[in-house]
Amino acid sequence: MPLQFNPQLGADGKLKHLLTTEGLPRAMIESILETADQFVSVGDREVKKVPLLRGKSVFNLFFENSTRTRTTFEIAAKRLSADVINLNINASSTSKGESLLDTIDNLAAMNADMFVVRHAQSGAAHLIAQHVKPGIAVINAGDGRHAHPTQGLLDMYTIRHYKKSFHNLSVAIVGDVLHSRVARSGIHALTTLGCPDVRVIGPKTLVPTDCERMGVSVFHDMYRGLEGCDVVIMLRLQNERMTGALLPSAHEFFKSYGLTSEKLARAKPDAIVMHPGPMNRGVEIDSPIADGRQSVILPQVTFGIAVRMAVMATVTGA
Amino acid sequence: MPLQFNPQLGADGKLKHLLTTEGLPRAMIESILETADQFVSVGDREVKKVPLLRGKSVFNLFFENSTRTRTTFEIAAKRLSADVINLNINASSTSKGESLLDTIDNLAAMNADMFVVRHAQSGAAHLIAQHVKPGIAVINAGDGRHAHPTQGLLDMYTIRHYKKSFHNLSVAIVGDVLHSRVARSGIHALTTLGCPDVRVIGPKTLVPTDCERMGVSVFHDMYRGLEGCDVVIMLRLQNERMTGALLPSAHEFFKSYGLTSEKLARAKPDAIVMHPGPMNRGVEIDSPIADGRQSVILPQVTFGIAVRMAVMATVTGA
Amino acid sequence: MPLQFNPQLGADGKLKHLLTTEGLPRAMIESILETADQFVSVGDREVKKVPLLRGKSVFNLFFENSTRTRTTFEIAAKRLSADVINLNINASSTSKGESLLDTIDNLAAMNADMFVVRHAQSGAAHLIAQHVKPGIAVINAGDGRHAHPTQGLLDMYTIRHYKKSFHNLSVAIVGDVLHSRVARSGIHALTTLGCPDVRVIGPKTLVPTDCERMGVSVFHDMYRGLEGCDVVIMLRLQNERMTGALLPSAHEFFKSYGLTSEKLARAKPDAIVMHPGPMNRGVEIDSPIADGRQSVILPQVTFGIAVRMAVMATVTGA
Repeated sequence: MPLQFNPQLGADGKLKHLLTTEGLPRAMIESILETADQFVSVGDREVKKVPLLRGKSVFNLFFENSTRTRTTFEIAAKRLSADVINLNINASSTSKGESLLDTIDNLAAMNADMFVVRHAQSGAAHLIAQHVKPGIAVINAGDGRHAHPTQGLLDMYTIRHYKKSFHNLSVAIVGDVLHSRVARSGIHALTTLGCPDVRVIGPKTLVPTDCERMGVSVFHDMYRGLEGCDVVIMLRLQNERMTGALLPSAHEFFKSYGLTSEKLARAKPDAIVMHPGPMNRGVEIDSPIADGRQSVILPQVTFGIAVRMAVMATVTGA
Repeated sequence: MPLQFNPQLGADGKLKHLLTTEGLPRAMIESILETADQFVSVGDREVKKVPLLRGKSVFNLFFENSTRTRTTFEIAAKRLSADVINLNINASSTSKGESLLDTIDNLAAMNADMFVVRHAQSGAAHLIAQHVKPGIAVINAGDGRHAHPTQGLLDMYTIRHYKKSFHNLSVAIVGDVLHSRVARSGIHALTTLGCPDVRVIGPKTLVPTDCERMGVSVFHDMYRGLEGCDVVIMLRLQNERMTGALLPSAHEFFKSYGLTSEKLARAKPDAIVMHPGPMNRGVEIDSPIADGRQSVILPQVTFGIAVRMAVMATVTGA
Repeated sequence: MPLQFNPQLGADGKLKHLLTTEGLPRAMIESILETADQFVSVGDREVKKVPLLRGKSVFNLFFENSTRTRTTFEIAAKRLSADVINLNINASSTSKGESLLDTIDNLAAMNADMFVVRHAQSGAAHLIAQHVKPGIAVINAGDGRHAHPTQGLLDMYTIRHYKKSFHNLSVAIVGDVLHSRVARSGIHALTTLGCPDVRVIGPKTLVPTDCERMGVSVFHDMYRGLEGCDVVIMLRLQNERMTGALLPSAHEFFKSYGLTSEKLARAKPDAIVMHPGPMNRGVEIDSPIADGRQSVILPQVTFGIAVRMAVMATVTGA
């Protein structure tokens, strides 16, 4: 009974919500990436708009502040011609689950069509998706350490764009894997798409113990981990980690796990370098690499808008 | 000369602003409710938009923070195809009346068509309406303890929807009537629409002394007050009251004036339960009642969008 | 080689960005004012919209809070049918130049068409304009003490509207000239447009020492400075100056440099009074003058929307 583990899939197998890349069928991921192909060209047009979501009400529900992510969803929705309402909700005023669902019920009663949800607590978007009535779509824009599925999908789009296929690739994910929803969403998507060699690289304190169960190999030496890679996904080191007990210092971290030209030389010459942003230059990535010829960090952003448009169009059946 | 007391009505008897339900002619209220009927169906459409206010500039002027109310007006305006500008203005920076009117003059000079005004001071919307030039409409979205007319009108819409007519109804308004603009706006609308039996129920410290002059009867015992009622309107208990001198405690309040199934049993079996939101579950209302079969709290929200669209269309003559 | 000093002008002589009125060719200023003429009438229409920027993404990038200025650009962009994204970015989180440009690169990668930039540091908009790829326009909405070119242009529009031509005019700019980007932008535009007599009036501590090099005459006595003037541009006294060491007190300032009817009587009888807003009534300007028959302060606001529409249309080639 896979459906009960996939509240995001309807009984008809269609995507109703996007909550996680975990358990998302390969055909579904591929369909979203193909839909995104069409939207990439919309961004280059004179009139960057299509009328697919005209007259739909999209609520950006940000219980955790993230101007950057909110902006990407706002642009995606507006380019689909939706009406967008931004709500920055102080998590403290809705800390009780009951109160969160009252907020959702109220907005749903305003004939909402879609909630884009960012929340510091893992599972918040799931809770909302299980609660809303049919016809309202929920997109997880990051929940705690759990998932950030549109980031995972845009990473897949980017890899597919540059490497065409996943079935021969070695992909390394580097840094604070333990706290990273980006890593988690990427790993699930990569394994689903048939990527045979996914590696995580990081200090012991920042690599989850269940990594191998997720079908990935673990490296604590970055030089060895990058050997022969096609794709290097760097993770953002959260500021609160840098001053915490898990790490000696930002400088020490950079020495061991910051991406430099010296370390990148171990990967394939045509390896691409990715980062979800915003970057800490000189902490997890050296500036010349961030701006270098192998970096596809800015194309990720461009593809991210198209992928979010594709997800929005898919979950609304537009 | 009723007009001088009705700055919201033009010399031609048309609605120019919506400031209060007090003195609003019955025919005007009924016309707004009938207009709202049409907009309720807009919310169910595939494309939830009508072009009535296309190219109009609507300013949401919130001198007091209220994400929820701001959202309802923003949605209403966007569904009418208006351009909406949200302005959260720190009341402290415009505490002088002169400075408030300078702000208004400036926005008016930007060719504003409508101001939706929320302000902590009673009379703020009136002041603005008296000041602006003809052609600019002002909608009061709550001013101090004074009025919240769109809430009053959406309550009337809800009652009419479920009870068809007002002329045989008993309506009870329960809680902190003294500080409630919702109560005040509801009482004026109910008496204007010919409701013969309006009751207010609350502790002596929270019921205004002039209540009987407004044509309502006062009860301090909730069981007696709910006897045979058709409609129960619960009021939100403001957090600042709960810790203030006017009340012993939230727990005590709930015991005496919280709506429970035991108390609701005194009303008619088909009585409806209303609440302007956001609810304090367990303070003014018991959760099973809030979510129960008699609750029409979420339909109030849905109707509220349609009523606000109707008011916006009416004051702009659209 | 004037072009290297004019990063806002393309090799073809067209306006790519609007960063400063300094060095802006006279024909360019006149072309913007003429384009604005057409947009003034848009503000009076039933449907206040033209489709010139439909499907364009305009980012309001405010690193310094200014609700008022942000609103004028938001309205201008919406009346041109653009999609507008408001970003209030805490300057502290982007205090490093590198980080600012990373932010810009990210937004540019979302297929931005225009950045409207407000920043506390002089030169921020220039830095961004030099950095972005061709096809993205940057409009300076105020950078430190340096420039506020749309304010300068709307002042020119206002003067031209009331006085028809610049070549016989005496224009006085009064107050805290030292810290005023409004003054600087106005002076450059006035001299470019051939205004033969530009005067600055202020206390010695608030008049820059290089004023005469900018082609203006300096007065410390306001009565003498206003003698025979056609136009009086009052500047806003920043609150932080009033309590600072540069000024004895707001009251003393008003006595010497506040515009009163007594002082205004020295100007020509048909002199117009301007102010960029928001006004400190009783500090730099007396209330009866602010609201008097010679005041064109509110028309400035109206013209400001049209001028900003004209600038947006010009830099996008629409």
